[in-house]
Amino acid sequence: MSVRRLALALSLCGATAAIAASPARPQEPITPLAPTKVSAPALVELGKKLFFDPRLSRSGFISCNSCHNLAMGGTDNLKTSIGHNWQEGPINAPTVLNSSLNLAQFWDGRAPDLKAQAGGPIANPGEMASTHVLAVEVIQSIPGYSAEFKQVFGSDKVDIDKITRAIAAFEETLVTPNSRFDQWLKGNKKALNADEVAGYTLFKDSGCVACHNGPAVGGNSFQKMGVVAPYTASSPAEGRSAVTGKDADRFNFKVPTLRNVELTYPYFHDGAATTLKDAVDTMGRIQLGKHFTDAENARIVAFLKTLTGAQPNFKLPILPPSSDATPRPEPFGRK
Amino acid sequence: MSVRRLALALSLCGATAAIAASPARPQEPITPLAPTKVSAPALVELGKKLFFDPRLSRSGFISCNSCHNLAMGGTDNLKTSIGHNWQEGPINAPTVLNSSLNLAQFWDGRAPDLKAQAGGPIANPGEMASTHVLAVEVIQSIPGYSAEFKQVFGSDKVDIDKITRAIAAFEETLVTPNSRFDQWLKGNKKALNADEVAGYTLFKDSGCVACHNGPAVGGNSFQKMGVVAPYTASSPAEGRSAVTGKDADRFNFKVPTLRNVELTYPYFHDGAATTLKDAVDTMGRIQLGKHFTDAENARIVAFLKTLTGAQPNFKLPILPPSSDATPRPEPFGRK
Repeated sequence: MSVRRLALALSLCGATAAIAASPARPQEPITPLAPTKVSAPALVELGKKLFFDPRLSRSGFISCNSCHNLAMGGTDNLKTSIGHNWQEGPINAPTVLNSSLNLAQFWDGRAPDLKAQAGGPIANPGEMASTHVLAVEVIQSIPGYSAEFKQVFGSDKVDIDKITRAIAAFEETLVTPNSRFDQWLKGNKKALNADEVAGYTLFKDSGCVACHNGPAVGGNSFQKMGVVAPYTASSPAEGRSAVTGKDADRFNFKVPTLRNVELTYPYFHDGAATTLKDAVDTMGRIQLGKHFTDAENARIVAFLKTLTGAQPNFKLPILPPSSDATPRPEPFGRK
Repeated sequence: MSVRRLALALSLCGATAAIAASPARPQEPITPLAPTKVSAPALVELGKKLFFDPRLSRSGFISCNSCHNLAMGGTDNLKTSIGHNWQEGPINAPTVLNSSLNLAQFWDGRAPDLKAQAGGPIANPGEMASTHVLAVEVIQSIPGYSAEFKQVFGSDKVDIDKITRAIAAFEETLVTPNSRFDQWLKGNKKALNADEVAGYTLFKDSGCVACHNGPAVGGNSFQKMGVVAPYTASSPAEGRSAVTGKDADRFNFKVPTLRNVELTYPYFHDGAATTLKDAVDTMGRIQLGKHFTDAENARIVAFLKTLTGAQPNFKLPILPPSSDATPRPEPFGRK
């Protein structure tokens, strides 16, 4: 890659500052993920239960984990998600893994943090289709939860703020350190093979790191989808302009993290790229004006697969049962 | 309860033999659950992954765990289940917990064992809506699975027999020993309070044990729904006659286990009883010709809640990623 093109990519991405020096290896634009320190374990445990609890949806069938499945890289591996009544979602579900590192949540960044994000799908008629009032009523009516809220918050009064705070606290623990790439960054040169190192070099030299940098290898800027060539999306989503109201922000989306990208297929906000090979090819063409050869593409893909870190490692939570007073799910409407 | 009525109940249920002597406490019709001994741990681990894998469904969204949710007593806690394309199922999903103790699987017993059961929902157009051919193709295409099949079966060739054998082996581990009732049965008289013991006495004296007996407190016979008074079901299911073709078997259903019944609401094959109170009331009236007072009902319910045993206790499995060759999910049909 020419210096001119790298400079162009950097200025397009406005990410120069993000490629700041890391203490360990100042020369690398990607830095190792630090393991989470859990400061409030009871809050996290409560949030874990709520994350897995389909009673937060009107149907009693859809939980946070339905679309951000922690057994599958924190995604549903679908082009776009399935919502209440099998509605087809407008956008690809981003991974919840390492999402605490994002500069904002959702593809268009309309939620400033995980807590704000967590309230969205619960009340979205196309997703979990509940309301905050109903969700609170359901959780409040479950004795096992009210006891846990009392323990965690000092009061058994449930509200949506506490529910989303707990879910966000759990999600903050979902970082995936110790990938082979991080081991390599930290000095274990045997952690990658020659192809993978060559792929990383190409990833840097081609300008991918202009946007995909930092500990999450992305997630820290909004960028236009289609810098060099236009992208024809299968999703109606307009991106950041829906939040800012500025036409200049049309088709600007949050750069996704590439951590665990081997697990988070399909790719892009519209889920149109089925394989990593497709995704690398398209990114090269529309963002960098570069056509990777098959061999180059394969090397970059080999590198990307080294970004798979330690996956969630906890016991399936056991949910407290509903009481006789708990509002019942309505998957098929009121009868 | 009169000796005559008990004798009637026993003959109706044909369950005299099942109330056989247990070595520990020969006088009790319910016997403690024995913990599982896992003889093939690698097979069980493979089965656990497959149980949680939504790629066994056409949509990529529904796994065994969707309707037999191990976080919620091995059920979906819905009246009837949600299938592919949000189809409304005809029948209540029975718990998978302790299902290895059932004399047969499904409410009508049409599958002789868990292995035969596991193949059903995968290919049922109203449930997971895949086919055995497609499910095998999907699993075969996933390198992590083929390596595990090789390790477990000595060959990486995937077939539906191996898939269902692994799922069944996992399900056989889902027994829930050490309930407070089992502790009481084994001699710890402090494990139950006076109301709970009174509820158990009433449960026995009223004839409930004629059908709900043995280690699973049920699951070991087919019985007519509506012995003394007719039951008007909201489900079209006809029960055992669908298997035997005999009119005499109409509305005969497998007696459900009452283990963990606190968690497995709503109740009956049509899921029409929302609460344990409802279920006890209806069973008394239509099966035993008995109207329990509120106080009696509450005591029986208190006893039933002591049947909640140790719930599944394992780490969320991490599923191996699809390869580029894996057939993609089709939640919204071919496009």
